[in-house]
Amino acid sequence: MTTDIAIVVGAAGGIGRAIANRLADDPAYGQVVALSRRRPDGWTAGPRRAWIAADILDETSLAAAAARLAQSGPVRRIVVATGRLHGPDFGPEKTMRSISFESLSTLFAVNAIGPALAAKHLLPLMPRSGPSVFAALSARVGSIGDNSLGGWYGYRASKASLNMLIRTLAIEHRRTRPLSVCVALHPGTVDTALSAPFQPNVPPGQLVAPDQAAAALLAVMDRLGPDANGGFFAWDGSVIPW
Amino acid sequence: MTTDIAIVVGAAGGIGRAIANRLADDPAYGQVVALSRRRPDGWTAGPRRAWIAADILDETSLAAAAARLAQSGPVRRIVVATGRLHGPDFGPEKTMRSISFESLSTLFAVNAIGPALAAKHLLPLMPRSGPSVFAALSARVGSIGDNSLGGWYGYRASKASLNMLIRTLAIEHRRTRPLSVCVALHPGTVDTALSAPFQPNVPPGQLVAPDQAAAALLAVMDRLGPDANGGFFAWDGSVIPW
Repeated sequence: MTTDIAIVVGAAGGIGRAIANRLADDPAYGQVVALSRRRPDGWTAGPRRAWIAADILDETSLAAAAARLAQSGPVRRIVVATGRLHGPDFGPEKTMRSISFESLSTLFAVNAIGPALAAKHLLPLMPRSGPSVFAALSARVGSIGDNSLGGWYGYRASKASLNMLIRTLAIEHRRTRPLSVCVALHPGTVDTALSAPFQPNVPPGQLVAPDQAAAALLAVMDRLGPDANGGFFAWDGSVIPW
Repeated sequence: MTTDIAIVVGAAGGIGRAIANRLADDPAYGQVVALSRRRPDGWTAGPRRAWIAADILDETSLAAAAARLAQSGPVRRIVVATGRLHGPDFGPEKTMRSISFESLSTLFAVNAIGPALAAKHLLPLMPRSGPSVFAALSARVGSIGDNSLGGWYGYRASKASLNMLIRTLAIEHRRTRPLSVCVALHPGTVDTALSAPFQPNVPPGQLVAPDQAAAALLAVMDRLGPDANGGFFAWDGSVIPW
């Protein structure tokens, strides 16, 4: 029986929970560790399911989680599924007049800095030999080249910076883990709290259930070859421009 | 005599001051307005040279500056020349171990949010007819696609997000100003306080004086056609990938 570990950061969110549940049903992993501020709904601790309370904006909690996992089996999969589009005081900007220091700071913190801090503490847990995958949920609207509609300033900018951070992490990580791959993934438009206010604008058939998105994203991760390192891919495996 | 106005944000910095001085010598502009926290060295107020104290991280000061300029002649050129690479407590990260919430937050604020706030308040001053140019200083290391060396996490990520913000501003601005162009520019490696700690690593002949960089950047801005809107260009006019 394998001792390989999978970690899902942001496992209490819609997509993160679906990914954690699928990984927990996958015999390729001996244990799935959910990292989140609160325990994911329905996530009952057992031999194959662990939960560690951690907040991506609290580096102490990330360091403590990493220390607890340092003696576990090899970490072969890390998925960072955190992300934020709107808050109690702000939504995605329709015009530049809505740009504010506070909302942009919040989005950079949650969507870019937090995932980078999670990577800082968790990537070193990956084994130096053999394959492993680190994936963080980005978004197609974080593609600069693909941006032809405008708007959504803070979300777009924070996801573009996340893409840069992942690519930069990928380059450094590869130096010590020649078969490890770090990527940014676009999950599609998923039926979660993040997309809820915008679902009326989603064309019919394009809103997918979290479990459907999780299945697609895990399939993409499973197919990634070494050349995918530092790349940006959609849920169907297609490459997204920077 | 023209009443056209040029604005330089961050005019007290090495590149910003050189650009402001060149614009003040250019008969195409009736007045150059330096915006900076402190008065640029050697910048003496006169009929062609004005200074308004403003801080890109203090939106009240930007709104006040814009209000003062609202009755002036048409603003045909805005250059945002602010930028930060290191601080008293941090420098560019050589490894992911050096990533910190504080340094990344500072770089996102200064390199991305501040320029976006400057654009928010100053772009509406541009006339709806005729050509105009908004340019913000980005950096080649802010290109995700061009990143093959890694490191410099916070600076790279903040400049990538600046590029996204500029492209998003460009799309919105174009809707009301069909001949206006918003771009991100890479100035090269310029002999300023920003590059000072790294100048020993710069190959001979690649470090340029601020006035030389200013001349090259202004020449690029003068040559931009309408199709350049939302693009990312080096000091020699070449396109940089996202």
